[in-house]
Amino acid sequence: MSPSFDPASPTFKIHEGGKLSVSSTLPLTNRDALSLAYTPGVAQVSAAIAQDESLASKYTWRARLVAVISDGSAVLGLGDIGPAAALPVMEGKAALFQQFAGLNSVPIVLSTKDTEEIIDTIVRIAPSFGGINLEDISAPRCFEIERRLRELLPIPVFHDDQHGTAIVVLAALRNAARVTGRSLRDLRVVVSGAGAAGVACTNILLAAGIGDIAVADSRGIVTSDRPDLNPIKQELAAATNKGGLSGSLEDALVGADVFLGLSAGAVTEDAVARMAPNAIIFAMANPTPEVHPDVAHRYAAVVATGRSDFPNQINNVLAFPGIFAGAFEAGAREITEGMKLAAAEAIGSVVEEELSATCIVPTPFDRRVVPAVRSAVAAQAKADGVCD
Amino acid sequence: MSPSFDPASPTFKIHEGGKLSVSSTLPLTNRDALSLAYTPGVAQVSAAIAQDESLASKYTWRARLVAVISDGSAVLGLGDIGPAAALPVMEGKAALFQQFAGLNSVPIVLSTKDTEEIIDTIVRIAPSFGGINLEDISAPRCFEIERRLRELLPIPVFHDDQHGTAIVVLAALRNAARVTGRSLRDLRVVVSGAGAAGVACTNILLAAGIGDIAVADSRGIVTSDRPDLNPIKQELAAATNKGGLSGSLEDALVGADVFLGLSAGAVTEDAVARMAPNAIIFAMANPTPEVHPDVAHRYAAVVATGRSDFPNQINNVLAFPGIFAGAFEAGAREITEGMKLAAAEAIGSVVEEELSATCIVPTPFDRRVVPAVRSAVAAQAKADGVCD
Repeated sequence: MSPSFDPASPTFKIHEGGKLSVSSTLPLTNRDALSLAYTPGVAQVSAAIAQDESLASKYTWRARLVAVISDGSAVLGLGDIGPAAALPVMEGKAALFQQFAGLNSVPIVLSTKDTEEIIDTIVRIAPSFGGINLEDISAPRCFEIERRLRELLPIPVFHDDQHGTAIVVLAALRNAARVTGRSLRDLRVVVSGAGAAGVACTNILLAAGIGDIAVADSRGIVTSDRPDLNPIKQELAAATNKGGLSGSLEDALVGADVFLGLSAGAVTEDAVARMAPNAIIFAMANPTPEVHPDVAHRYAAVVATGRSDFPNQINNVLAFPGIFAGAFEAGAREITEGMKLAAAEAIGSVVEEELSATCIVPTPFDRRVVPAVRSAVAAQAKADGVCD
Repeated sequence: MSPSFDPASPTFKIHEGGKLSVSSTLPLTNRDALSLAYTPGVAQVSAAIAQDESLASKYTWRARLVAVISDGSAVLGLGDIGPAAALPVMEGKAALFQQFAGLNSVPIVLSTKDTEEIIDTIVRIAPSFGGINLEDISAPRCFEIERRLRELLPIPVFHDDQHGTAIVVLAALRNAARVTGRSLRDLRVVVSGAGAAGVACTNILLAAGIGDIAVADSRGIVTSDRPDLNPIKQELAAATNKGGLSGSLEDALVGADVFLGLSAGAVTEDAVARMAPNAIIFAMANPTPEVHPDVAHRYAAVVATGRSDFPNQINNVLAFPGIFAGAFEAGAREITEGMKLAAAEAIGSVVEEELSATCIVPTPFDRRVVPAVRSAVAAQAKADGVCD
């Protein structure tokens, strides 16, 4: 047994019985109520949907229901802990959907890690849901699973570890550039980590017009001449590293404007010291940032982490509740790149008035965030023509 | 569009937005709450479960969570209407689990009707749930699906259309026999319908010691010499019809003590008139009983239907909430035949004091039912040695 298992601690106490409950929105306490909400009344509703499936979004709960789906293969910093152990995290995520956006959400954990089996399973249960939030599925399977599900399903599919992180990073980076008097186009960015978040962050930053990005994995800078790259990293190599850098992460950091830490690997103070003046450092590894904020501040003008006990917390909860709420509001069949960019813009705009080096993103509990993201995403969905 | 689709009617009005909602049992309204219930706190809980999966029943919601799963192939009297149209019924069923037994329940509707795909899908999502209630899956696939899932999964799997009906029928028939001064052993029973409910009712009645049962499907009495029987009906033929009857349902009814109607086929008054004196008639087709209760009462001492507007309503809701509650209470890995018999006994016992020809089962809203069923089922689970 792990030494951290302490049934008497507050963490374990509050987890007893889990963190979610399902209620009926109607009282079923007498015969008349039962005959409206269940048999025989419900048969009329079912018959109507059988003739016109679009009525399901009006007369069932699925139009506002997100499935949070994981195979438990890449959970927090714990790695491949399996479906049962992943369930508390997915329950928490479902609770966040409810508390932040008023959406219903159900965690589904899977007893398979096979890409095809995961895709098949989600396709088969999809009529139960209005949207699919993929969570904590390890790279590179997560890319294929999300891509295929987006093709196969007529509802929003969103891998939060990729896009939730990427959206908030873009929001934060745009504001950090503003604070330091730079334009996105001129930034030279170094991304540490080529997993789910690293790939998605790189892609959204390229889409937002960042000039030059170098990505490093555990073996160094991802370059086209490396023989060890999987197809996803080959794509990454082709789209990045305009400067033709090679070598280690530390090599890439020399003179860089931005460090984006999305892996657990530590970065030395020496390497940070060689970045450009007034650098921007997002050290997002949790619970231990790649470089401690106190060290980072010696060299950087703006520092962000994934932690709630430092300023500028890069937290996915700024993105996913409003994104699904906006997609549902618009009746969107998918979440487009435009909708992601709109979400990032909305998140960043919330703190426009109070913008500073210690306030580049709102806090998770800022009540302006979800409405702003929801509206921006819904409007963009309509503009992109992906709504029913 | 069906003429019964009237968006302004109360039935459609109350269905707007669906009938279920998910809540968080913890407030996540500040940083401290978030860090206990989500990251970083939740990582301790996940790590503990990763080391000892049995902790998942204490620290997740799944130990009290029932999946209500359907492929939409045999929904109410509507038949094969597909997953989206089935969803309102499954939402209603989930609401009943909550309201009657305080259990959480989530509807899952499937976009496949393939037996193997259904089994695979349910096995893969099973770590999300504490029990599986199969619903409205057509025969004969429902038998194979339930049998295989019971073998494959370490949690209760229960096809309600089979066993929920069978349990309440047994409870009602035992009391009807008592009211008419008969013993179960001496009854001659005719079952109309060899689908899910017909097969399960026949099996539980045989297990309860009923002497002689003849089953009829749309082609007449199910006998071993019929060349058109599927394997399920061949088993049924081998286990029933001690009297060696052949011919039609009407032929079987001559002199029979009990008619159990579980199909939509009407029965003539003439056929009813030829039953034994003081017959017992359960005409459970919905919404139109096989024989109208007013007609049945001319010949029968006890009459029951599936309808709430006549006495003696045979309603599954008397069984399934207490059965899952009892199985969960005991930590049962399956629902045994003994647990089903115990549930029937408990349901019948509730009305022991007020037993009469018009009160052979409790009403669905009798608050004594669920506690009685839960205790009886939990005790039997322990006696049967199927608990963790």
